[in-house]
Amino acid sequence: MALSEFTLIDQYFNKQVDAAFPAKLGIGDDCALIDVPPNMELAVSTDTLVERVHFLANSDPHLLGYKSLAVNLSDLSAMGAKPAWVSLALTLPEANEYWIKEFSKGFLSLAHTHSMQLIGGDTTQGPLSISVTVMGLLPKGKALKRSGASVGDAVYLSGNIGSAGLGLIKAQQTASDSSDEDLVQYLKPMPNIDLGEQLLTRASACIDVSDGLAADLSHILNASGVAARVFHKNVPMTEGVKQHIKRLDDELWPYSTGDDYQLCFTLPKALTKDKKIMGLVEKNIITHIGEIEAGKGLIVVMPDGSEKTINKGFQHFNKGPIETVHDK
Amino acid sequence: MALSEFTLIDQYFNKQVDAAFPAKLGIGDDCALIDVPPNMELAVSTDTLVERVHFLANSDPHLLGYKSLAVNLSDLSAMGAKPAWVSLALTLPEANEYWIKEFSKGFLSLAHTHSMQLIGGDTTQGPLSISVTVMGLLPKGKALKRSGASVGDAVYLSGNIGSAGLGLIKAQQTASDSSDEDLVQYLKPMPNIDLGEQLLTRASACIDVSDGLAADLSHILNASGVAARVFHKNVPMTEGVKQHIKRLDDELWPYSTGDDYQLCFTLPKALTKDKKIMGLVEKNIITHIGEIEAGKGLIVVMPDGSEKTINKGFQHFNKGPIETVHDK
Repeated sequence: MALSEFTLIDQYFNKQVDAAFPAKLGIGDDCALIDVPPNMELAVSTDTLVERVHFLANSDPHLLGYKSLAVNLSDLSAMGAKPAWVSLALTLPEANEYWIKEFSKGFLSLAHTHSMQLIGGDTTQGPLSISVTVMGLLPKGKALKRSGASVGDAVYLSGNIGSAGLGLIKAQQTASDSSDEDLVQYLKPMPNIDLGEQLLTRASACIDVSDGLAADLSHILNASGVAARVFHKNVPMTEGVKQHIKRLDDELWPYSTGDDYQLCFTLPKALTKDKKIMGLVEKNIITHIGEIEAGKGLIVVMPDGSEKTINKGFQHFNKGPIETVHDK
Repeated sequence: MALSEFTLIDQYFNKQVDAAFPAKLGIGDDCALIDVPPNMELAVSTDTLVERVHFLANSDPHLLGYKSLAVNLSDLSAMGAKPAWVSLALTLPEANEYWIKEFSKGFLSLAHTHSMQLIGGDTTQGPLSISVTVMGLLPKGKALKRSGASVGDAVYLSGNIGSAGLGLIKAQQTASDSSDEDLVQYLKPMPNIDLGEQLLTRASACIDVSDGLAADLSHILNASGVAARVFHKNVPMTEGVKQHIKRLDDELWPYSTGDDYQLCFTLPKALTKDKKIMGLVEKNIITHIGEIEAGKGLIVVMPDGSEKTINKGFQHFNKGPIETVHDK
């Protein structure tokens, strides 16, 4: 079935409801028009996903639609921003109606969860690639940046690390179990929007862990001019990941796998006793994994007391067959 | 030379100067942070260019950097918006330093011309593709939309049509003359930012002509619920285009070629005598090409008095080897 771009967009991407901040003009003119409420500032982030680079060929379009927005929402969560608007640049090899229908459903379902409005974009023909620009709102001057960590702050992590990395390995296996927690973590990451907003007046620095905890915590350390000591035994991992690193005999493996989409943040010592924070710890939503120190670099303290310095950045080029999604 | 993404971005895309509206936080965190001045609203538009679809393989990276921003600025000009910020999602097959250097020069030179700030984006590996999201500012409620044309309004066009379409044909020839006006129009379109701002309190409707005058003027007609009569002899074309349509024996050819990046707008009759408008007409910056009528559709009145109804939309899929850039 050959559909024109206009028909495709009209049919599947215009099904929108209940925007928290309705645009003054949405899809259908040369630009969208939006109003930023007084006392708010706009947080903007862009992430691109390319087939065979950031996701496997023939990925499920519904999951892909969901994930292409989720990875962008993760950036908003890291600043503590409330999702408001999104623009979608979709490049497709062909106008496959089933694919577009499923992709739009996955994409819009997550947009609706966060009362976001799709305000525009572009549909083009070419190798499959998805570039999303999200816009969120923040009280002026309150954004969580990477640069605010101080010596003595505590380091926290939401969720766990390595699970999506293991999920990617499982996704490449023919007989993967679709209910496997690591596979689900890889295919359908949950952006930490609520957590980000709760951290707004609390965290001294924050980042989303998309390129691996080592690389992303290092961004905080570099931007803040400090070092960190992370206690390996405190870092949460799934049972699957624990078994995997035993098989690999590489305990640091989960520190450099991507696609976690957790938040790593620092908190002034006094706030570790904050009621909201303690409640989140009790519910295992966040975990205290380390401390900020004077100096440079990231040290992981192993259970036997030995220390490993890790300084492994994520490189977008010169990589293996499938990268994980990234945005730094 | 293998460069990491971080080095590439630092080295070439951070060379920025004199932003009209400096971001509170630019490249280097999870999101950029921007402030929209009081009494202003934000205009947002996204356009993607894909190699072998929207531009020829092995295109000059400097020209490509320029054009990928120019086509987006054209959308801002059509709303009358002042350019402010831009986000760049760049997908490259390899980290070729020469290419990135030249591309960034072309891109940033045009950004600087308009005092725009590059506030973020994403660099990924994959088939060459460029997706740009521009943000511009407008006095609240003053934007030029497609939907405001009324019966009796005059139809105007900036520049001419068909020249970039002919330029594309010339670009595909091996012995093309780099000073040829049609080739220049195709390779280096000038966004009509100043004109758009001048039309802010004057035009009743406006669109940028990127998919051909027939398709784009039809968008105004459909959005406004009116028809138009365009007088062929009044529509400006270069000498090259005039010769080309003679060879083709197809006088309507320039109405459906893309990449013009001119503004087509409508003006209440009384404003055709406005001093600013008359000054622009005298300088051949804009031309009065037709009238808005009651009804539906676009009629072109030929020099012999015959009338041709054209209703040719632009289709992104099912096209030939090279599309022109588009955004509707």
